[in-house]
Amino acid sequence: MRATFMYGAGDVRIDTVPDPVLQQPTDALLRVVAACVCGSDLHPYHSMPAGEASPMGHEFIGVVEETGSEVSTVRTGDLVIAPFAWSDGTCEFCREGLQTSCLHGGFWAGDGIGGGQAEAIRVPLADGTLVKAPVGEDSELLPGLLTLSDVYGTGHHAAKTAGVERGDTVVVIGDGAVGLMAVLSARRLGAERIVLMGRHKSRTDLGIEFGATDVVAERGEEGIAKVRELTGGHGARRVLEAVGHMPAYEQAVGVVRPGGVISRVGVPQYSEAPVGFGSLFGPNITLTGGPAPARAYIEELMPHVLDGTVQPGKVFDRTVDLDGVPDAYRAMDRREALKVLIRP
Amino acid sequence: MRATFMYGAGDVRIDTVPDPVLQQPTDALLRVVAACVCGSDLHPYHSMPAGEASPMGHEFIGVVEETGSEVSTVRTGDLVIAPFAWSDGTCEFCREGLQTSCLHGGFWAGDGIGGGQAEAIRVPLADGTLVKAPVGEDSELLPGLLTLSDVYGTGHHAAKTAGVERGDTVVVIGDGAVGLMAVLSARRLGAERIVLMGRHKSRTDLGIEFGATDVVAERGEEGIAKVRELTGGHGARRVLEAVGHMPAYEQAVGVVRPGGVISRVGVPQYSEAPVGFGSLFGPNITLTGGPAPARAYIEELMPHVLDGTVQPGKVFDRTVDLDGVPDAYRAMDRREALKVLIRP
Repeated sequence: MRATFMYGAGDVRIDTVPDPVLQQPTDALLRVVAACVCGSDLHPYHSMPAGEASPMGHEFIGVVEETGSEVSTVRTGDLVIAPFAWSDGTCEFCREGLQTSCLHGGFWAGDGIGGGQAEAIRVPLADGTLVKAPVGEDSELLPGLLTLSDVYGTGHHAAKTAGVERGDTVVVIGDGAVGLMAVLSARRLGAERIVLMGRHKSRTDLGIEFGATDVVAERGEEGIAKVRELTGGHGARRVLEAVGHMPAYEQAVGVVRPGGVISRVGVPQYSEAPVGFGSLFGPNITLTGGPAPARAYIEELMPHVLDGTVQPGKVFDRTVDLDGVPDAYRAMDRREALKVLIRP
Repeated sequence: MRATFMYGAGDVRIDTVPDPVLQQPTDALLRVVAACVCGSDLHPYHSMPAGEASPMGHEFIGVVEETGSEVSTVRTGDLVIAPFAWSDGTCEFCREGLQTSCLHGGFWAGDGIGGGQAEAIRVPLADGTLVKAPVGEDSELLPGLLTLSDVYGTGHHAAKTAGVERGDTVVVIGDGAVGLMAVLSARRLGAERIVLMGRHKSRTDLGIEFGATDVVAERGEEGIAKVRELTGGHGARRVLEAVGHMPAYEQAVGVVRPGGVISRVGVPQYSEAPVGFGSLFGPNITLTGGPAPARAYIEELMPHVLDGTVQPGKVFDRTVDLDGVPDAYRAMDRREALKVLIRP
């Protein structure tokens, strides 16, 4: 089969590799129907040292082609959604809805598991990991359902861990797909005022469609001042940080209200950050978030995608086949595309 | 009057200074009946550069001697408790119970306000700040009531912001007065298992009296391993950090369970700390806490002190007059005293 590999920063290739095969009785084999490139794929695209090839892709929908003898919740022919972490569904963390900390799980494209930007993939712990989608593989809802793999669940996680409630004022930092999903999620949870910080008009326009009430294009001190002006001088009670770079963290600290919450869902590209008296401690700021347990949210979020209440699939503004994947990375890196759908 | 001043690291003196006088119609003047030395007073005791003298003390109970024309909730002769921050009680943050972020308030021993380790003190915004204690100044409950100024409220804040609930497993880092109050508070909120990390037996014995079920004297990796062993291998859902130094932060990260909460109430002696994928982000750890809005908790916590359900006054293991204050600092710094009560 053909699959996507990254060989180093800026170097994405489509290779022909052996077809995946069942290895464990809990495995399932999927033919990938739709996958996509994630904003977090751009982090190694900027910084990965040249050397070994790394399989890519952690968001996909596929059709089950074969299942191991112990798989019971999905069967051949089912169209299924895979969250960005695989998990057993039965350990203490899975039962609590924190599947990203599953005791026996892991992440795609690591530990000998392939990536989703490919024609096929082996899914470990299929019963715990996969969720059946009640549509056909030609459904127009596929892009929306695909966002349940990661970006919609991640935006929802930001809003939920920040404690967004009806009537809240929320600031979303970042106008990438996750930021826009955070806007949509905050709106769905009842936020009244949603300030989106981003400077790409086509994206912030989509943010407004998803529920943002204000857009602040300025960054740094200027952006902070503008948000504070919009939020009565003291900042917002809930700040959703959907970027992962230090300036976004600093922006979050700058716009959060004393006693408020910063939820991070952009994978941090730093290991240390200001948390002392002058940043988080003095004003009693809570810092929360992390990799979204997307698996935990699929059942909750899917009905609204199916009935059209929300249209998260709008974050996809380009579609490519596998040959188009290297260009998809380039286009997302140059901000020419927001999020690229892959039809292997 | 006589009052305590710090002139630099290790240099605490009792000076004679002019008596405080009313300056604003919202002021009250207090004769200080009981005050104490705080663990956080030891931070400047270690590091304050020599130079200007700084008034000391932010925990005190006093008798109202005189009030400004706009003070209406306390009157001359009342015995009152002062929390460690003064606040107007009416701004948006005070109304939300975050008096440490009061728009018009501040902290003792700063902004021209004296410290509580003195014979008398001027209290700004007396209506918002002071709470009347329904006992006489010779009451045996005075030490317990004095803990409502800071340490008991701070321990309660740690437990509350960490979300301690009935049946929880909690780790408390630090066997100082605040750590012990965090134990007592976690117990009062229903925690079932409370692991106290500390290595001063007389203190951890008091911690056991307050409700700790386990004591871990080891520090660093060894301490972390021991706590994990005690908590089923994955750490505790609630970690209360009552120290403020980086090793305590690292210990908190080491013993917290994925999806858990670290609440810090020890004033951080660092400005940056690990918050990246490998520390907080990956396992979805929440970092919360800050200076306790002690004022918000006095009414809630006082009844249990008055009826003897809890005996937080046991943290005081020495009493001195003003002349004994420099020695009190020395004794607390050398861990010869846990917390020293001052009777000016």
